[in-house]
Amino acid sequence: MKIRILLFASLILPSLLLGADERPCMVFTGQDTRLIRENLGKYPMFDSVFVQAKSQVERALAVPMDVPLPKDAGGYTHERHKQNYTEMYLAGLLYSVTGEERYAVFVREMLRKYAALYPTLGEHPARAGESAGRLFWQSLNETVWLMHASQAYDFIYNWLKPADRELFEKNIFRPMTEFFTVDRVSEHDRIHNHGTWMVAAVGMAGYAMRDQDLVDKALYGTKKDSSAGFLKQVEQLFSPDGFYTEGLYYFRYAIMPFILFAQAIENNQPGLKIFEYRDQIFRKAVYTGLQLTNMNGDFFPINDAMKEKNYRSPEVILALAIIYQRYGQDPALLSIAKQQGSVALLGAGVSVAKALTIEKKPPLFPYRSMEFTDGERGDEGGFAVLRSGSQDDQLVVGLKYTGHGLSHGHYDKLSILAYDAGHEILQDYGAARFMNVESKFGGRYLPETKAFAMQSIAHNTVVVDEKSHYDEKISISEKQHGDRQYFHAENPDFQVTSATCTTAYPGVAMQRTMAMIRDEKNSKPVVLDLFRVVSDREHQYDLPFYYVGQFLYSSVPYTAYDKKRTTVGSANGYQYLWKEAEGKPSGPVKFSWLNGSRYYTVTASSDTGIEVVFARIGATDPNFNLRPEGAVILRNRTRSAVFASVIEPHGLWDGNKEISRDAYGGVASVAVSASTAEGTVVQVLWKDGRVWTVLVSNQDSAPAKRHSIQSGARNYEWTGDAAIVKY
Amino acid sequence: MKIRILLFASLILPSLLLGADERPCMVFTGQDTRLIRENLGKYPMFDSVFVQAKSQVERALAVPMDVPLPKDAGGYTHERHKQNYTEMYLAGLLYSVTGEERYAVFVREMLRKYAALYPTLGEHPARAGESAGRLFWQSLNETVWLMHASQAYDFIYNWLKPADRELFEKNIFRPMTEFFTVDRVSEHDRIHNHGTWMVAAVGMAGYAMRDQDLVDKALYGTKKDSSAGFLKQVEQLFSPDGFYTEGLYYFRYAIMPFILFAQAIENNQPGLKIFEYRDQIFRKAVYTGLQLTNMNGDFFPINDAMKEKNYRSPEVILALAIIYQRYGQDPALLSIAKQQGSVALLGAGVSVAKALTIEKKPPLFPYRSMEFTDGERGDEGGFAVLRSGSQDDQLVVGLKYTGHGLSHGHYDKLSILAYDAGHEILQDYGAARFMNVESKFGGRYLPETKAFAMQSIAHNTVVVDEKSHYDEKISISEKQHGDRQYFHAENPDFQVTSATCTTAYPGVAMQRTMAMIRDEKNSKPVVLDLFRVVSDREHQYDLPFYYVGQFLYSSVPYTAYDKKRTTVGSANGYQYLWKEAEGKPSGPVKFSWLNGSRYYTVTASSDTGIEVVFARIGATDPNFNLRPEGAVILRNRTRSAVFASVIEPHGLWDGNKEISRDAYGGVASVAVSASTAEGTVVQVLWKDGRVWTVLVSNQDSAPAKRHSIQSGARNYEWTGDAAIVKY
Repeated sequence: MKIRILLFASLILPSLLLGADERPCMVFTGQDTRLIRENLGKYPMFDSVFVQAKSQVERALAVPMDVPLPKDAGGYTHERHKQNYTEMYLAGLLYSVTGEERYAVFVREMLRKYAALYPTLGEHPARAGESAGRLFWQSLNETVWLMHASQAYDFIYNWLKPADRELFEKNIFRPMTEFFTVDRVSEHDRIHNHGTWMVAAVGMAGYAMRDQDLVDKALYGTKKDSSAGFLKQVEQLFSPDGFYTEGLYYFRYAIMPFILFAQAIENNQPGLKIFEYRDQIFRKAVYTGLQLTNMNGDFFPINDAMKEKNYRSPEVILALAIIYQRYGQDPALLSIAKQQGSVALLGAGVSVAKALTIEKKPPLFPYRSMEFTDGERGDEGGFAVLRSGSQDDQLVVGLKYTGHGLSHGHYDKLSILAYDAGHEILQDYGAARFMNVESKFGGRYLPETKAFAMQSIAHNTVVVDEKSHYDEKISISEKQHGDRQYFHAENPDFQVTSATCTTAYPGVAMQRTMAMIRDEKNSKPVVLDLFRVVSDREHQYDLPFYYVGQFLYSSVPYTAYDKKRTTVGSANGYQYLWKEAEGKPSGPVKFSWLNGSRYYTVTASSDTGIEVVFARIGATDPNFNLRPEGAVILRNRTRSAVFASVIEPHGLWDGNKEISRDAYGGVASVAVSASTAEGTVVQVLWKDGRVWTVLVSNQDSAPAKRHSIQSGARNYEWTGDAAIVKY
Repeated sequence: MKIRILLFASLILPSLLLGADERPCMVFTGQDTRLIRENLGKYPMFDSVFVQAKSQVERALAVPMDVPLPKDAGGYTHERHKQNYTEMYLAGLLYSVTGEERYAVFVREMLRKYAALYPTLGEHPARAGESAGRLFWQSLNETVWLMHASQAYDFIYNWLKPADRELFEKNIFRPMTEFFTVDRVSEHDRIHNHGTWMVAAVGMAGYAMRDQDLVDKALYGTKKDSSAGFLKQVEQLFSPDGFYTEGLYYFRYAIMPFILFAQAIENNQPGLKIFEYRDQIFRKAVYTGLQLTNMNGDFFPINDAMKEKNYRSPEVILALAIIYQRYGQDPALLSIAKQQGSVALLGAGVSVAKALTIEKKPPLFPYRSMEFTDGERGDEGGFAVLRSGSQDDQLVVGLKYTGHGLSHGHYDKLSILAYDAGHEILQDYGAARFMNVESKFGGRYLPETKAFAMQSIAHNTVVVDEKSHYDEKISISEKQHGDRQYFHAENPDFQVTSATCTTAYPGVAMQRTMAMIRDEKNSKPVVLDLFRVVSDREHQYDLPFYYVGQFLYSSVPYTAYDKKRTTVGSANGYQYLWKEAEGKPSGPVKFSWLNGSRYYTVTASSDTGIEVVFARIGATDPNFNLRPEGAVILRNRTRSAVFASVIEPHGLWDGNKEISRDAYGGVASVAVSASTAEGTVVQVLWKDGRVWTVLVSNQDSAPAKRHSIQSGARNYEWTGDAAIVKY
C-alpha cells in the first residue's frame, strides 16, 4: 500500500506555533508531532499504524456521531462509548499531526455531546458490584474514557474557544474527576490496577485543565499525604525487580496506565524524574514482564489470567515503545517489537519502526533463567524461572512462591508450569473466562473461576486433605507468601531453585526444589521436581500434573471408570474433576503424553504408597464453561513424604512424515534415597545404565556449607545448596 | 547455507557414458541426472533437498552398516530396515548424480548383506494378519523395501560386477518377487492400495532385472490376462474424475506407487502411453486429491484417516513434481508446491524449484465447488464440495455419498464435514490411530477405529435406531453407494447439492440437500442443511454435529449430567459417547461454539418433537485412545422428518485485542414449511426481519422442471432443482 504523504509546509501548523501554553502536552507532545511528521512514509511498520488510525477516524467522520444514553454492560451503548473515546483520541492526534481542522471539529462536537449528556447521568443502570460508573457499568471503563478524553481535549485545547473549554471542564472534566476523587475515593486511593487506571485518568485530566491540585491528588492520594496515589502504587505494586504483584495478566493491563501517566508526568513535571523513580522501576517492570513469557510470547498464566494474552497485546506494544525510547534504545527490545508486528502511534513508535527498518535481524531478547522477588521490599516470596535451550526449542519451568496477588490472586503456592518448544506442557489453568464473549456470562469472570480455577487443586501443586491453600481465605492468604530458599543458574547443566511454604496449611511444611539438568547423552534437558511435605500428623497429599496434549499411557495398573463416571471429590474444586481412572503403581509411576512433535513422560517415585488418579476437568459444569483437559494426580496418605518426579521431554513425532523416535524416553526410575531437614537425596536411574544422584539442601541458601545425611548404612555428603553426581 | 557445487567436468561420469544398457532407467533416468547436475546451486528449494539427502547418506556412510535379523513390528529392526532402504536408494541416486564410487560401494555392500540374510528368512516372527512379510511383519512394508532396493540396484547396475548382479537377483530379487507373485498372490492381484504397492514393487524389480515377464505380471496380474495388476488397479481404484475410492488418506498413500511405477513404465515402455491412460487419469487423480483438501492443505478425513496428513506429505510432493513435469507445467500447481516447502529429489523436482524461483507469486490453486464421482465408471455415488470466499477465509462443506471405499471405508453415507478460514468446524473423526506411536498399540489402528470411528454415529449423518449404516456389514455396504441428486455451483450466491441413500437402512429413504448461500447483508455465507428421512414405520433418528471448538451455549433447556455421567448408548459406537446433557427445545434449536477467531451457530428447526443430546467422545475408552471432543445430537422419534439446520459462521473474537463482535449470529429460526416426495420448502427467518424461502427438489435433477407443492392453504411453485426467494 502506498501511503499518501501530506505536505505540511504550506499549512498553518497549529500546535507548533503556539508557545504560550504548549499543547499537546500529555503522553503525546509537540515532539511526537514533529517526529511523526518528519518520518511518515519512511518506516512501513509505523506507516501502517498511522494509516489504520486515519482510516478509523475517516470512517467515524463519515457517519453520524452517536453519544447514547448509557444502558448496557457489554452491548451497544457500552461498546459505543468505548469506540467514541478511541475515535476522539485518534482524531485529536490526527489534528496535531496533520493540522486539519476537521479532526479538531470532530473532537469538539463529540465533547459537546458528552458535555450535554454527562451532567444528566446518575449511576449506570446496569451497575454491578461496588464501583459503578455513570457512562459505564463500572467506573474502571469510565477511567479509561477519561484518560482518552483528557488527551483528546489536550490535543485541541489551543484551538478551542474559551467558552468550549469552560463548558467541557464544567460539564465533564470537573464533575467526573470529582466523582472519582470523592464518590469513588476508595477506588482512587486503592493499591490495585483499578486504582492505577483511576489516578492516571484523574492526573491526566488535571494536566489537561492545568489543575495541579488534581494532579497532586492523583500523584499522592486524595489526602495528598503520599498515603495513596500513583507514586504509592508504583511503590507497592511492583517489587524492586519490577515484578507486578497481581501476576502477568494484570501486569499487561496495568502497564498501560502506569507507563502512559509516567510519560505525562515526565512531560509536565520533569523535575519529578519519574522514569528514574525506584531505580528505573518502569524499565524493570517491562523487562520482567517480558521475561515472564513463553517463547511464543504468552504470559505465564498465574492467578486470574486469560491465555490469549501475550506480548503482542496493544498495551505491551505501547509500553515497549516508551521504554525503548526512554531507556537508551536497547536493541534487544526490537526482536520483541518484530514479533509484535506493530508499533505505538507515538514518537516512540517512530523510533522503534525506524530501528527495525535498519536492524532487520535484531539481537534476541535476553531470555534467561531468573528469579523475581515479590512485594514492595522484595521480601514477599517470588517467582523463579529456569530455561534451557535455544529460543526456538527451549524448555521453560516456572515456580510460584509469590504473595497472594490482590483480588485476582490464586491461593496456590509452589505450583509449577512448564513449556517446551513454544508449547504449554504443564498448565496453570488460568481463569475461567471467555473475554468479551457475551454468551459466556457477558464475557465476565465465570463462577467457575472462583469455584475451580482459583482453587489449589486446579494447579500443579500439593493439596492437603482436599482443601485449598489458606483454606481459601484471602484475609489470611494476602498476608502470606512463599519463601525463596535458593536459586542457582550459574551452571547451565545443573540449574536449581527451591522455595518453601509453611503457611498454606497449619502443621504442614512444604518445600519444592526443581533442577533443570542438561546432559550431552540426552537430546533434551530434564526437570527433576522434588516436592517435600512434612507434618507430624497423617494427611492426604495430592499432587496434580495438568498435562497438555494427548495422553498416551501409564505404567500404573488402573481401574478405568469408563462406563459411569463421578467426580474426584465434592468440594474445593475437586467437584470439577471427573475421575477417569485410579490405580496403585507396582513399580515407578510413569505417564506419558504427546504435544506437538514431542513426547513427554513424567516418571515419579512410588516408594511411599502412592495412588494415582486420572482426572479430567469438566464435572459440575452444566454450562460448559471449562475446558475438558486432563490431569494425573499423585496421591499419598502419610505424614511426611517427598514426591520425586522427572519431567522428561523426549523423541520426535511427525504424523505427516510418519516419523516416531524415542517414544518411551530414557528414565527408568526415580527413587528418594534420603530426605531429612538437612536435605534430600534422589537417584535417577536411566535405562542405559546411567545413575544420577541429586543431593539438595532443604535449608536456606548456604553455598559453602557442607551437608551430610545418614540414611541406613549410607552417608551422603555434599557442599552447597545442590549437587549432582553422575555415574 | 552455501551449497558446495561439485565440478563434474573432469570426472568420468558413469551412467552418461554407457549406452548399451542405459541405467538408471526406472523412476530416475539419465535425464534426471543431467537436470540435477546442470542446476545444482541454482534453486534453493532443490538444493536444500539435495543437501539433506547427501548429509543423510554421509551419516550412514560414517557408521557401521546394520542389516539385523527381523524381530519386531515397530521397534528397532523394523525401523532399521526402513532406514536401510531409504539410504540405499539415496546412495544410488547420489552415485548417479556425483559419480562418486563410494556411494555405489555402499549400495553394493548393503545388497550383499541382504543377499546373505534374505534366503535365511521364513515368515516374520511378529507377523499378524493375513499378509505377513519376511523382512517386515507385513508384506506391505516389504513391497516398499523392494521398490527402493530395485531402484538402488538399477542405479549401480552398470557399475556392478556380473557376479554381484547374479547374487542379488538370485538371493533377493528373484525370491522376493516370487514370494509376492506366488505366496502373496492374493495380495498381488488385489484391487487395493496394498496391491498397488506390491505390483509397483514387482514391476520395478522386473525392469531392474530386465525381466519383461515379471513386468507383465505386475501390469496385467499374475495370470497376465488383465484380470488384475497395475492397469486394472488404475481402472478400478479411480473414478473417471480421478477420485480414489478409498478416500483421501489412502489416496495420499497410494499415489506414490501409482505415480512412481507409471514413471518407470513411461521410461521403459513408452509405447504404453501410461500418462495418457484413461484420459490422463494420473493428472486427474492428483488434481482431485488436491481439490479434496481444506485451505490449509489437510485432506478431508473421510473413512480411515489420520488428520495429520496434508498435501505437504512426502508422497504428494513426489506426485506433484511428476504431474507438473508430465502435464504441461501448470503454474497453479506451484502455489501448492510453495506451501509444501519442499520438492521431489528428481529432475521433475528441479523443474518445480526452478519455476518457483522465477515465479515468486504463483497463481492460486483453482479450488472451487466441485462434485466428484466414485467408482470405475463414475456411477457409484460420489463426493460434493461447496466453497465460498477467498482462499484465506473460505467456507467449505463436503457431502459424502461415495461407495464403501474398500477395507478402510466407513459405513456412513450423507455425512458432512465443514471447514472455515482453514479451521475444521464440523469434523469427521477419521480413524482412531496414533501413527507410529508405539505406546498406542504399536502405532497401528486402534480397536476404537472399528468400534467407534467406523460406526455411523461417529459421523455427521443420520443414524437410525442406534445402528450403523448397512448394519455395519461390509459385505452389503461394499455393494452400495449413495446417489447424486443434483449439484449446482453456477450461482456463487446460491450453490446447492443433493444426494440420497436408500440402502443404508431397509425401509428408510434418506436425502441430504445442502445449500451454501451468500448474501451481501451477511458477513459470511451460511449453509442450509436439509436432511430428510422417509419411512412408513416409526424410528429413532439421530443427527450428530461434531462441532470443533469451545462450546458456548444452547437455546435448549437441558438437564446436565454433571455429577454422574453415563454413556449415550450401549452399542454401535454409542457406548463411546458420554451423555453430558439432554433436553427438549421450546423454540428453535440453537447451539454455538467458538473456533479460532470466529463464532459458529447451528440453528435447527424443532417442529417435530426434536430432543437434543449433548455428548462427548471418550466413554468405554480405558486406554485413553480417543480425543475428548464434543457433539450435539438432534434426535427425533417419528416416521418421516426433515432436519433443517442453518450452519452460520459469524462475528469476530480476538482475546488478545479484546474484540468481540456479533457473538450471536443473525439467524432467528428455521422452519420446514412443506416436505413431500416432490420437494422441501424451508423458511429461514433473520433477526433483522429478512425471510428466506428455500425450495429444493427431492427428485433427480431436472433443471427445467416446474415444481409445485401444496401445504395447507399455501402453494409453493418453483422451476428447477432449487430456488431461493428473499424478502
